[in-house]
Amino acid sequence: MLTKSDIESTVYGPVEVELQRVIASLIAVADREDAENIESDIVLQERLEHILAAPGKRVRPAITLLTSKLWGKSPSESQVTMAAAVELLHIATLVHDDMVDSADLRRGRATPSNLWGGRTAVLLGDYLFAAAAMFVCDTNNVRVIKRFAETIMELAKGELTELIGEGNSLSSRDAYFKRIYNKTGSLFTTAAESGAILAGASDADEARMHDYGYSLGMAYQVMDDVLDFTSTSEELGKPACNDLRQGILTLPSIMLIERSPEDNPVTRLLNGSPDDKEIHLEQAVAQMRDTGIFDECIVVADDYVRRSLESLQDFDDSEAKSSLHTLASFASNRLH
Amino acid sequence: MLTKSDIESTVYGPVEVELQRVIASLIAVADREDAENIESDIVLQERLEHILAAPGKRVRPAITLLTSKLWGKSPSESQVTMAAAVELLHIATLVHDDMVDSADLRRGRATPSNLWGGRTAVLLGDYLFAAAAMFVCDTNNVRVIKRFAETIMELAKGELTELIGEGNSLSSRDAYFKRIYNKTGSLFTTAAESGAILAGASDADEARMHDYGYSLGMAYQVMDDVLDFTSTSEELGKPACNDLRQGILTLPSIMLIERSPEDNPVTRLLNGSPDDKEIHLEQAVAQMRDTGIFDECIVVADDYVRRSLESLQDFDDSEAKSSLHTLASFASNRLH
Repeated sequence: MLTKSDIESTVYGPVEVELQRVIASLIAVADREDAENIESDIVLQERLEHILAAPGKRVRPAITLLTSKLWGKSPSESQVTMAAAVELLHIATLVHDDMVDSADLRRGRATPSNLWGGRTAVLLGDYLFAAAAMFVCDTNNVRVIKRFAETIMELAKGELTELIGEGNSLSSRDAYFKRIYNKTGSLFTTAAESGAILAGASDADEARMHDYGYSLGMAYQVMDDVLDFTSTSEELGKPACNDLRQGILTLPSIMLIERSPEDNPVTRLLNGSPDDKEIHLEQAVAQMRDTGIFDECIVVADDYVRRSLESLQDFDDSEAKSSLHTLASFASNRLH
Repeated sequence: MLTKSDIESTVYGPVEVELQRVIASLIAVADREDAENIESDIVLQERLEHILAAPGKRVRPAITLLTSKLWGKSPSESQVTMAAAVELLHIATLVHDDMVDSADLRRGRATPSNLWGGRTAVLLGDYLFAAAAMFVCDTNNVRVIKRFAETIMELAKGELTELIGEGNSLSSRDAYFKRIYNKTGSLFTTAAESGAILAGASDADEARMHDYGYSLGMAYQVMDDVLDFTSTSEELGKPACNDLRQGILTLPSIMLIERSPEDNPVTRLLNGSPDDKEIHLEQAVAQMRDTGIFDECIVVADDYVRRSLESLQDFDDSEAKSSLHTLASFASNRLH
């Protein structure tokens, strides 16, 4: 059986050099600020550096770079820039999301809103959104730029509908899938599709990579929502069961409501006293486990993984294709 | 002497029809959301409508439209779209700024953060930033798109350095002018310059309109900072003396510190007890008035106005040129 490190070297190996360039160009965003001895500029530079130098999984830029390599050539300057834009947009989103969710920790590190307050986090996020847009403009490709702007809109919409729907037990599967598309599927789609567009791919190949990114993103978010219930706080680097505790209904909670709409721990948690929250939460997780809800969610994720793998079929075999294959195969497998 | 309404009809008259199209396309951003009976989508649509239908001065889109008309032709589809993008970006900025400044009112209306909380305001602002970016992409002009992304970055930087510098009495004129360029000058510059770029103007004419927008924006912000001290809360539609009360040093405060660096009401306010804030504030305003600081600020604004008018000189006479002239002439005159 493959270890985590085997998987990582298969996935990231073929684009390791380019990923290092992506990371270097992210950190250079902070240096670009010409501080000129104005104190507030120096503070700004330090805070940007702190955010941009944080370690991350780099899944999204790896997708752009691997897609770029599907046609045999090394990623071009534009494709590397695009990969950086995708990662920077992801980072900007995290800064705002953590502020909105009042999250103190991410991957075990203090969040910007925790370190410097919500107001600063809002503006740092804005700055990083704009920096991401500057990167994507450097591709000089209006189609890619447009798709990027649309993605920012979808990301904001995903978070907005999540926030507006908080504590509402009427959330349906349809609304859930729409929401996770906005929240995660959209940027994964853009990561893969933009690599193809910038490679000058045919319409059919572009559509295939669109589907690859879409399905992978959906699988990824469904699994994230399962892991939020099944992992420990240590494994997550943030409090476990965070979604439901905040009143956000993800697939496991929606399935639990579907099974016993009249009375279930999720509805009791949403309508009950805050004092009983932890009891309801424990009961919800136990019931999800006992009624096989987590397994059912993995079936949903597996189905997305299957679609994602299908969209790779028609490409010639290559190291990049095999990396994209491995990446998708393990998306629904992160529990084990 | 011209009344306020004479000035408005001179400035807005030649582009009234196009401004109506701009306003209609702003409101259409909310309608674009296909609500599909999902409750959170309907709520999102309503909140966007509330923000986008709010009345505004529309100075920025008017600048883009008037610049577009300098060469005799009616504004093109792209130029009208650009004017909408500029106004939408301004609106997005206000949503975040009011959240960051904890402002309850703007032009006498409750702010989004006041109505729906800071978290929702952050995400609504993000959504509107992205919608503005979508508009600018519709111009299909990469240079304009890049300048727009840079403007978003500068806007965020202006607010960030203001926030970071809060309560710091070492703020210099240099830092102040840099900050108000980011905060206001940048978007005014983009408003004028993009109209010229999309008109296919010569490099020299583009540079002239760049200077026009820059100087007008700077004059505008210097005057805004004076008006914050000299107007009543009713006139402003928000609390008077808001900047200094929040510890933000604008030109009048910086001049007061320059005159008596050792001891002055501004430094006393920043270092003193919150209980004495209103007393120090009153003393600061009285001292600014008595030592002619407001007049000196108007001289600074007048100088920017002069540069702004100079940049119009070489254009052929037209209704649009005369509107831009009137707009700039009255920028430093808003006290009277």
